[in-house]
Amino acid sequence: MKVKGKDFRSIWVDENDDRIIKIIDQRHLPHEFVIEELTSVREAARAIRDMHVRGAGLIGVTAAYGMYLAALSAPADDFDAALAAAGDILIETRPTAINLSWAVQKQLETVRGVSSPPDKIALTLETAGKIARQDAAFSQSIGTHGLKIIEKISEAKNGETVNILTHCNAGWLAFVDYGTATAPIYAAFSRGIKLHVWVDETRPWNQGSRLTAWELGEQGVPYSVIPDNLGGHLMQHGMVDLVIVGADRTTITGDVANKTGTYLKALAAHDNHIPFYAAFPSTTFDWNREDGIGEIPIEERSADEVKYTRGWYRGEIIEVLVTPANARAVNYSFDVTPARLITGLITERGVCRADRESILDLFPERKP
Amino acid sequence: MKVKGKDFRSIWVDENDDRIIKIIDQRHLPHEFVIEELTSVREAARAIRDMHVRGAGLIGVTAAYGMYLAALSAPADDFDAALAAAGDILIETRPTAINLSWAVQKQLETVRGVSSPPDKIALTLETAGKIARQDAAFSQSIGTHGLKIIEKISEAKNGETVNILTHCNAGWLAFVDYGTATAPIYAAFSRGIKLHVWVDETRPWNQGSRLTAWELGEQGVPYSVIPDNLGGHLMQHGMVDLVIVGADRTTITGDVANKTGTYLKALAAHDNHIPFYAAFPSTTFDWNREDGIGEIPIEERSADEVKYTRGWYRGEIIEVLVTPANARAVNYSFDVTPARLITGLITERGVCRADRESILDLFPERKP
Repeated sequence: MKVKGKDFRSIWVDENDDRIIKIIDQRHLPHEFVIEELTSVREAARAIRDMHVRGAGLIGVTAAYGMYLAALSAPADDFDAALAAAGDILIETRPTAINLSWAVQKQLETVRGVSSPPDKIALTLETAGKIARQDAAFSQSIGTHGLKIIEKISEAKNGETVNILTHCNAGWLAFVDYGTATAPIYAAFSRGIKLHVWVDETRPWNQGSRLTAWELGEQGVPYSVIPDNLGGHLMQHGMVDLVIVGADRTTITGDVANKTGTYLKALAAHDNHIPFYAAFPSTTFDWNREDGIGEIPIEERSADEVKYTRGWYRGEIIEVLVTPANARAVNYSFDVTPARLITGLITERGVCRADRESILDLFPERKP
Repeated sequence: MKVKGKDFRSIWVDENDDRIIKIIDQRHLPHEFVIEELTSVREAARAIRDMHVRGAGLIGVTAAYGMYLAALSAPADDFDAALAAAGDILIETRPTAINLSWAVQKQLETVRGVSSPPDKIALTLETAGKIARQDAAFSQSIGTHGLKIIEKISEAKNGETVNILTHCNAGWLAFVDYGTATAPIYAAFSRGIKLHVWVDETRPWNQGSRLTAWELGEQGVPYSVIPDNLGGHLMQHGMVDLVIVGADRTTITGDVANKTGTYLKALAAHDNHIPFYAAFPSTTFDWNREDGIGEIPIEERSADEVKYTRGWYRGEIIEVLVTPANARAVNYSFDVTPARLITGLITERGVCRADRESILDLFPERKP
């Protein structure tokens, strides 16, 4: 997508030196646009853990490239063990999003049975590139399928502005390109459909007010940042036509783990008869889990993310304390929205209901 | 309540000069404890509008003292008109909380028919004092009635920790003393009941992470600050036993206007079968309104409260930008929780269901 009019993806291989992976260090957005170079699996793991990159798709792709960086420096006589250890380091960084372990697994499968280390290295680079391209292609398809939902609402409103609420950032910064929740928005916007996006701030890390707001602004999509507390009021007053969020892990039964607070918006949408969709690629499905609330591991992050807020002050990014200095704070990063509150799932294959039967109709190869 | 072990109320008359009203300037909490002197109705209005003081009860009492300050400087030949104009200035500052206009009205009634300006001045001082004492007494009664609810839960849990979630600050800083949502908590804590409070941060103004956290900490009550997004997840996992919030205006049908985001917590409590109470004095009832969502005016405040976050940095309070510089932001301060989601109302007369019949049983003098 565009940054100051120039095309970017969220991660890419340096064009002059393919031992260098480049990312946008998202901690600096929206105030500064900083590109970071990753040259080792430890740097990749740190980038994921400390949220230089984040978002279900992008942490998967970053992990895939992290495995390639690990392969580059793996000892020839102990290559596979070194790669497996690198995978463990990467998987430990963020427990909730399933794309991460999926990408690591893909890389381990890639080198299995291949004997020459140079071949293995070449294969991990190729696989990472494939995963990245597939991620972008899936996002684009999600845009095409989700567009129809927005078009219908626009028609029903006789072309009046469609108000879409989103939580967190399931934009192109969370994937490789287009995003998932944002892909239908970008598709609709480029078709000239009048729309406006309510951007949930998404405390504590402010993915909404920092990243989604910046993304939409760069593409020229009208938006307003709102406190996470506001969505219910807006829905009660007819100011929201549609909710689209992303997903970090979706059970085969249609329960969706996404950024904490998503469940509250789903409840409000349900209470006000507003369609609520989760948009994600099929790599986000956890085909083995049935009960989202009971079974999906929920990451707990540092209390300091709650106690401090990061922002722009006199030309630099600083953190201010927003609680008593000795306050205890708790910071679960995700929650689970039960399938019963979800109108539909938007995947690269199309839209389905949030239940096992509909999901398996779309992905029949997963039928037992 | 205690501040560093010393007893304070949130507003008082200077002990050496009764033409000076003293308040705690809450914009500085929890980082600094600043006492401010009010000597004119304009200063009182500014203190309310710019949130040096806030909270349903306290803005009512501050308005009552503001009317007294107006009386002090009202011209003898145009006293009543000056006082009415002062009332208009005060009422305009914050439209949602009904206690404000109620207090202004009380003061106008106080001087009606009294001819001597010195008598009028003395009466407005007396009435403001009465309103303040009544506010504290009502809060204390709310504590006594609400205590029983916490005691019951504690018994049902065999004395294990009772986890109470609250949103915004309906503490003693929002009233004159004790608070409303916090009064039962303080009462239970002083009886030795084991409890822990989940404090919603309450963006954008952070009344929770700044004020409620500070209050509870000063009294020694265990608490954890959480992002506003977290309550649903905690409720899904059995980590919340009870929700108590305040109210800025309650219809005769039991709909409750309170700080924006309250409705989302009520939905989550309802979805997880967790008792949800609103605690407030009867001065918060709007006896003439039937439909909270349709009829209660909702204050819209500056977008800058969303775009900037106030916090402590290197020994001073500053504001950091948390959105793109050119972002649009929207900031409705309150939302309405429909009565159907509310387990009960805790008032100074006792606890009742959130419906007209139960409310009028408790306040039979309001029966038509």
